[in-house]
Amino acid sequence: MTYCVALKLNAGLVLLSDTRTNAGLDNISTYRKMFFFEEPGERVIAIMTAGSLSVTQTTIARLQEAIDHPDSGEHNSIMKASSMLGVVGVIGETLSRTRREIAAQHADLRQSQASASMIVAGQRAGGEMRLFLIYPEGNHIEATEDTPYLQIGEHKYGKPILDRVVTPATSLEDAQKAVLLSMDSTMKSNLSVGMPLDLAIIEKDACQISAKRRIMQSDAQFSAMSDAWSEALREAFVQMPL
Amino acid sequence: MTYCVALKLNAGLVLLSDTRTNAGLDNISTYRKMFFFEEPGERVIAIMTAGSLSVTQTTIARLQEAIDHPDSGEHNSIMKASSMLGVVGVIGETLSRTRREIAAQHADLRQSQASASMIVAGQRAGGEMRLFLIYPEGNHIEATEDTPYLQIGEHKYGKPILDRVVTPATSLEDAQKAVLLSMDSTMKSNLSVGMPLDLAIIEKDACQISAKRRIMQSDAQFSAMSDAWSEALREAFVQMPL
Repeated sequence: MTYCVALKLNAGLVLLSDTRTNAGLDNISTYRKMFFFEEPGERVIAIMTAGSLSVTQTTIARLQEAIDHPDSGEHNSIMKASSMLGVVGVIGETLSRTRREIAAQHADLRQSQASASMIVAGQRAGGEMRLFLIYPEGNHIEATEDTPYLQIGEHKYGKPILDRVVTPATSLEDAQKAVLLSMDSTMKSNLSVGMPLDLAIIEKDACQISAKRRIMQSDAQFSAMSDAWSEALREAFVQMPL
Repeated sequence: MTYCVALKLNAGLVLLSDTRTNAGLDNISTYRKMFFFEEPGERVIAIMTAGSLSVTQTTIARLQEAIDHPDSGEHNSIMKASSMLGVVGVIGETLSRTRREIAAQHADLRQSQASASMIVAGQRAGGEMRLFLIYPEGNHIEATEDTPYLQIGEHKYGKPILDRVVTPATSLEDAQKAVLLSMDSTMKSNLSVGMPLDLAIIEKDACQISAKRRIMQSDAQFSAMSDAWSEALREAFVQMPL
């Protein structure tokens, strides 16, 4: 499984993904699930993926092919789409087509084995920051003021903390804490989500990746935060009247 | 949906269930999901149910029928079984048979529509406290020192808090806080779990229900606890270094 979460805040976009991929419990690997497409100052697009690795890798490869070789069969470059809505349309169409082709070519695959979803975040110069979730069928929803975050994969464990602390006014620093704690709760309760993590920040109107960080198992800062949060929760729990 | 959680602690058993039942989002009702079978001082059995209301109601009715009318077709009374293992065996057999019969009689039902699971907690005089989870197929697992809690229904939202604070040494008072906060997180993130709640305590070796409480939407104590926890979480979050 997977857990990816993204926030759309007044100050920018914050993305976090894990890297654990499993084909059964005894076949666990590490694969990046966060991908960037960037022309600094003009546009930045970040994609996070969940679901069949075969579908997501092929989809990302086709998006890259359309950028690198516009004469190939893949001719809709997300770097040329005139808006983020156009970008998410191209990605949705590519995901849906790839999923259907893989399922059709491999009749033994169950429906769920050839399924995938994606989160797309980004901004074009002159446009707004936008954050979308693309379903396996290719259609999408968008984050709003009311619900400023989107999740894919194992989303339930990490949802309560987001519901409690995230609003559009949340600072980028607090937002990083929120997504890391949301991921921490998920990893503590579900083995199929695991380190290392990929974190990215896209500041408003920067139209480029403002910061990215790979957080390894040995990351002292993350461990300290995780321990501090456990301790704070236990302390709050003990202090709380019944 | 449903959320039911039970803890087996050194000091006793703690059970909490919600009461929301839905057939589609536009057909929401309140049904008790916690049932007691008790001969004070001799044995106490508490059952919590999740899944198809048709299956769980029929199963509970058959268990009651076997107690009230031993000459009926239902002749295995859980009040006569010689151990908690015997009790859980009877309940598992009754659940599995009921589920299969309902599915067989109503061919249009999808498999998932005629499915149900149960948590069974209790003690017989001279025996140990025991806590079981019964799967739709009738087989069961048991809570242990390592994992002193069991959940059925929408279990993911409320698992992180249990993983962090519950051990067999947890006091009955702290245990009530833990299950109520676990439920609170679940209700905040999932509309299909809702008030009122049923809470029950079975103290070790009492062989009877030591306390039970129905918590209504208007319950000031629960609201205060929920608010205090949200506040404590937000405070801990703000204080925490990134």
